[in-house]
Amino acid sequence: MKIRPIILSGGAGTRLWPMSRVTLPKQLLPIVTERTMLQETACRVRTADFEQPLIVTDEEHRFFVESQLDAVGITPAAIILEPQGRNTAAAIALAANWISAEGEDQLMLVMPSDHLVRNAHGFRRAVAAAASAAVEGALVAFGIRPDSVHTGYGYIEAGDSVGEDETTLPVIRFVEKPAREAAEQFVASGRFYWNAGIFLFSASRFLAELGQHAPEISEAVRSAMEQSTNDRNFVRPNPAAFAPSPNISVDYAVMEKTGAAVVMPVDIGWSDIGSWATLWNVSAKDEAGNSVAGDVVTLDVSDSILRSQGDATVAAIGLHKMVVVATRDAILVAPLDRAEDVKTIVQKMDAAGYGSVNSPTRVYRPWGSYERMDGGERFQTKRIVVNPGASLSLQKHKHRSEHWIVVNGTAEVTVGHQVSLLQENESTYIPAGTVHRLANPGSEPLHLIEVQCGSYLGEDDILRIDDRYGRSATDAS
Amino acid sequence: MKIRPIILSGGAGTRLWPMSRVTLPKQLLPIVTERTMLQETACRVRTADFEQPLIVTDEEHRFFVESQLDAVGITPAAIILEPQGRNTAAAIALAANWISAEGEDQLMLVMPSDHLVRNAHGFRRAVAAAASAAVEGALVAFGIRPDSVHTGYGYIEAGDSVGEDETTLPVIRFVEKPAREAAEQFVASGRFYWNAGIFLFSASRFLAELGQHAPEISEAVRSAMEQSTNDRNFVRPNPAAFAPSPNISVDYAVMEKTGAAVVMPVDIGWSDIGSWATLWNVSAKDEAGNSVAGDVVTLDVSDSILRSQGDATVAAIGLHKMVVVATRDAILVAPLDRAEDVKTIVQKMDAAGYGSVNSPTRVYRPWGSYERMDGGERFQTKRIVVNPGASLSLQKHKHRSEHWIVVNGTAEVTVGHQVSLLQENESTYIPAGTVHRLANPGSEPLHLIEVQCGSYLGEDDILRIDDRYGRSATDAS
Repeated sequence: MKIRPIILSGGAGTRLWPMSRVTLPKQLLPIVTERTMLQETACRVRTADFEQPLIVTDEEHRFFVESQLDAVGITPAAIILEPQGRNTAAAIALAANWISAEGEDQLMLVMPSDHLVRNAHGFRRAVAAAASAAVEGALVAFGIRPDSVHTGYGYIEAGDSVGEDETTLPVIRFVEKPAREAAEQFVASGRFYWNAGIFLFSASRFLAELGQHAPEISEAVRSAMEQSTNDRNFVRPNPAAFAPSPNISVDYAVMEKTGAAVVMPVDIGWSDIGSWATLWNVSAKDEAGNSVAGDVVTLDVSDSILRSQGDATVAAIGLHKMVVVATRDAILVAPLDRAEDVKTIVQKMDAAGYGSVNSPTRVYRPWGSYERMDGGERFQTKRIVVNPGASLSLQKHKHRSEHWIVVNGTAEVTVGHQVSLLQENESTYIPAGTVHRLANPGSEPLHLIEVQCGSYLGEDDILRIDDRYGRSATDAS
Repeated sequence: MKIRPIILSGGAGTRLWPMSRVTLPKQLLPIVTERTMLQETACRVRTADFEQPLIVTDEEHRFFVESQLDAVGITPAAIILEPQGRNTAAAIALAANWISAEGEDQLMLVMPSDHLVRNAHGFRRAVAAAASAAVEGALVAFGIRPDSVHTGYGYIEAGDSVGEDETTLPVIRFVEKPAREAAEQFVASGRFYWNAGIFLFSASRFLAELGQHAPEISEAVRSAMEQSTNDRNFVRPNPAAFAPSPNISVDYAVMEKTGAAVVMPVDIGWSDIGSWATLWNVSAKDEAGNSVAGDVVTLDVSDSILRSQGDATVAAIGLHKMVVVATRDAILVAPLDRAEDVKTIVQKMDAAGYGSVNSPTRVYRPWGSYERMDGGERFQTKRIVVNPGASLSLQKHKHRSEHWIVVNGTAEVTVGHQVSLLQENESTYIPAGTVHRLANPGSEPLHLIEVQCGSYLGEDDILRIDDRYGRSATDAS
């Protein structure tokens, strides 16, 4: 049976804030390597043993997912867009229904998109070894041998191997995040594994178990996929049909209830990079034990993680086991052993209305990116980068006028009925209410400074008249 | 005899980096109060007992000094511009010669411009009490009773009071920065005072002592002032005549050698704000012991000093006795007990060519200010603020073109022979090589976005044709 990777890329990320944001979770960022974690996840299963991956994500991140995979030469079989977040049971069910509709049963290799797997070869070998059990109807959970007492993960208790099968073990029980004492016993016993959220099973068997143990999810997802619409490579399940699906994890909905669960113990250099402390653990470090990226100067600093992503130099003196992360709009300073509290301060800031919790300073769009550089009363300044050959939508704004100055590259500018080419050091003006479009006809990125003037400057002041990326008239994404 | 305040405002500042910079020392910044330390120093002696102050500073800071004093309604008697830094002996001698040239002998109250004096009333009372000794020919040094063992200050050993004079004490000796053991003995003895660099003496007596103990300084400064030029309120001593002056402190040149020195013990809430630790000591603190300014969010932070000056939020977790200072281009993180090492890391960064060591992100000019907001290959973006009624010089650039967009207020723009008014949301273009001028004819500050394009964008690409502030053709200040 063919193996189809199912990459789950939903959800928000705040534990690596301020590097990650609610709208820019860590799977979309280059955290450990120069590739994003989503790219690493997809590349891990780019061999002849695997089909093209199926991605489950959401509307907001669809262009990220598409362009990041495109950048590593991967074209997904489809990108399924969850109408709402309904947790992993429904997400996997969407993918299972997609496979089912294709006609041929397949094995589904379910993977979160934001985990580190150092030993990709070992991982693929384990998948291959688990395939026969999955073909025979088992629901295989990959179990990570614990190397520390961790209360933030679910655990799987395994029984002794039975019969001829020496690779997978029977599951005694799933345990959700345990108390410290229980976790200590689990790790000491040698019979418990971390539940990494990586699974292998056939689509048909998964759907059968789901129908039995979680019929509401089964029904909602089946109906949503039957009424789904296609737009290029994007699949949109019917929102109204999907909405009633319970919001629960696959562990809770299926794995803990089925009699067909087995565990496949693996040693694959796994980490969920769940905090700055975990990231420091797995990062390359200098001789002082520091993981440093960006413009950082140190004096007597050890065992720390230091990141500068904005324009500012981080100058650190006399730090030990600290995290310092500077972005253009937010700076985090904390001891590494308080890394779990990043979540708490982010919640506090979110409640106080801090924009830096949700939005990154640089916003990615299907055509390139923009970044707000300055702003004040009735104006703001943005740097806009348009990819070669790309084009923004034909649009107009009700409340703001725009001044555009080309600083690198060539722009094709439509203002009203006039189309003109602007070179470096040339400018144009778009009065409020005027239909306009910006495109890059060149082979190099176009850099443009936009000065917006107006009493209202929100991103939602946009009316799209035509868009090559299929965005609707008022879609600000 | 009248008392003339002499405010010394020379020298660079790095110990409060990144808030202070080499070109923006701490006397020009609002460090403890909302006024700058220079303003506080001048306001401290704004009573009927004192003449208008005489300021000694340098070319680079002349407009800062003038506009900061103007902002608190103080017009200095004169602003003497040191052609080169030659330490306090020569700086005080410049002022003494200025008084001497006015014809009437006066008492000189010499004050550094960057010290905190909490008890201004007590300070003025001490000056009044010391005046009679100064009139009779004494060189009075104000001595601070030590409240800690400090090895960074000079000490003055005082003898027992003699005769009827119960206010000043005879000086036994001056001791430069002592070793710790010596400093401990000094403080324990009760006979030693910190030398705060505040002095009171008559101009005639100072010049006589200087002529006797430091004839080279005396001669160089006399000659430089005889050949000085005046420009509005600025006095420029002759650079060639001034250059040979030895570069030594008034303590070393005069106070340690004269037989006329006395010490006036004072208890005036003095601090030199010599480091972030000292600043934390004297700052207002919240109930957790934190001194916080700007956009800062904390979780379990105590006894720390936290500053955000740029656009970024500082989010601090679990810090104790730390300093975190964020500016647009540099972020300092250190334990308070390593505050003295700021100097070391700044030297390290200076050696590595970091611009943030020297220049502030916002640059002040006589007409207003500018701040670089963005920049890349062959372009940069600045926010320019022009004060009401102010005007930049008539100028041209060889290498760069400029795009101006008015975002607040009204601009009077000269481009070539054309003069026009630009309102909010209007723009203009100045090709390289074209003579131009920007002015604010309105009554509100003018905010303008400038996008510069060109292969060379340095501040020294400027040719001034006409300047109302008396700056020369190539003066970039």
